[in-house]
Amino acid sequence: MTAETGAPTTAKRPGYRRLPVQQRREQLIAVALELFASRPPEEVSLDDVAEAAGASRPLVYRYFAGKQQLYEAALRSAAEELAGRFTVPPDGTPTGQLAAVLDSYFSFVAEHHTGYGALLRGGSVVETARTGAIVDEVRRVALRRTLRYLGVREAAGPRLTLLVRSWISVVEASAMSWLDEGRQIDPESLRDWLTDQFVVMTAATAAHDPQTAGVLATLLEHDPQAAALLRRMAP
Amino acid sequence: MTAETGAPTTAKRPGYRRLPVQQRREQLIAVALELFASRPPEEVSLDDVAEAAGASRPLVYRYFAGKQQLYEAALRSAAEELAGRFTVPPDGTPTGQLAAVLDSYFSFVAEHHTGYGALLRGGSVVETARTGAIVDEVRRVALRRTLRYLGVREAAGPRLTLLVRSWISVVEASAMSWLDEGRQIDPESLRDWLTDQFVVMTAATAAHDPQTAGVLATLLEHDPQAAALLRRMAP
Repeated sequence: MTAETGAPTTAKRPGYRRLPVQQRREQLIAVALELFASRPPEEVSLDDVAEAAGASRPLVYRYFAGKQQLYEAALRSAAEELAGRFTVPPDGTPTGQLAAVLDSYFSFVAEHHTGYGALLRGGSVVETARTGAIVDEVRRVALRRTLRYLGVREAAGPRLTLLVRSWISVVEASAMSWLDEGRQIDPESLRDWLTDQFVVMTAATAAHDPQTAGVLATLLEHDPQAAALLRRMAP
Repeated sequence: MTAETGAPTTAKRPGYRRLPVQQRREQLIAVALELFASRPPEEVSLDDVAEAAGASRPLVYRYFAGKQQLYEAALRSAAEELAGRFTVPPDGTPTGQLAAVLDSYFSFVAEHHTGYGALLRGGSVVETARTGAIVDEVRRVALRRTLRYLGVREAAGPRLTLLVRSWISVVEASAMSWLDEGRQIDPESLRDWLTDQFVVMTAATAAHDPQTAGVLATLLEHDPQAAALLRRMAP
């Protein structure tokens, strides 16, 4: 790793410090993510990133060919961070573990609210096949982790896949709805609603699919709350 | 409406006929939609549309400034067609009515499979803020129609909105999962799964929201099958 040779104009800026290449790159991405968190991507320029980072525009360009590259790098970094949050805590009931992951997810959504909304709403100028692929990869990781957490060792059949993909879409839709409706529902209550949805969606699928029935049986065995929820469903 | 003045080269093509402006425009959109149905947007050129329509490239350009404009017009046309399918039949139980709308939705997805997948997967080169807005408008129509069909006359609160938006996302996710997994589940069975999901998702939400509880009560009053499903949920 080589240290930067800062141009005289950048060296004069107050926040400017010489940083090793990788560290500077990470700093610029972190600064960009902070800007994307509260402003739509089309309203964040490389100048804004340079200013917020206490660096010069040429320096920012040395790391990223343009705004699109910076956006993609920032998205990739956010996606990695999000995927890291899908880790299930070792203790607790299945729905308790799911709740912990959801808490972590919603704090991510709250931190990156504008960027998250712009990305999932679609139609942003910075969206490309590559950004679409990054988002899809996060969904695939979420699918794999959820299946593993459910104790599914063999390949998931079409109905179980359908169930888990659908529930993940409910998580995304509820995050979007939460942001759009001015966060009227508190995040803890939203997280409980989502774990309830997981239980009832699984139970309604289990009736038509032996693999999902197996997942439900394991869930109910370890989770008295889930069983109580299903008993309360009868009119 | 004026008739086209066909250029000599186009007049020679076998399928070419003079058409009034509006009719020709609709014909080109219909041809484009057929091509988008089985090929991703980036693989459909204006030349392809001209050839399939039995028209010249200059004629296609007279109606659409470029591929982007043609794509947006085709998307708008497809969105209108889809929104038209959200009409609930007057007779039958609530879940029966929902099933009829879903049948219509899945036949739309099957007809437009590649275009539908490309659009919802995101990251297509032809996606813009305008195409995003068209997709969001279809979702808003689906939300309004579903609420109306549920007999909700007053404004929907955050939990009921959350529920219906989430279920609509399940419909979309299941259509994508259905296409991605090689249509292993038959559409009738998928439709029944979705109406079941609607019932259980509503029941699990009703426990925490009086407005949704009202919706559930109306649903159960008219739908013995929904009540039976909820009774079967107990472990």
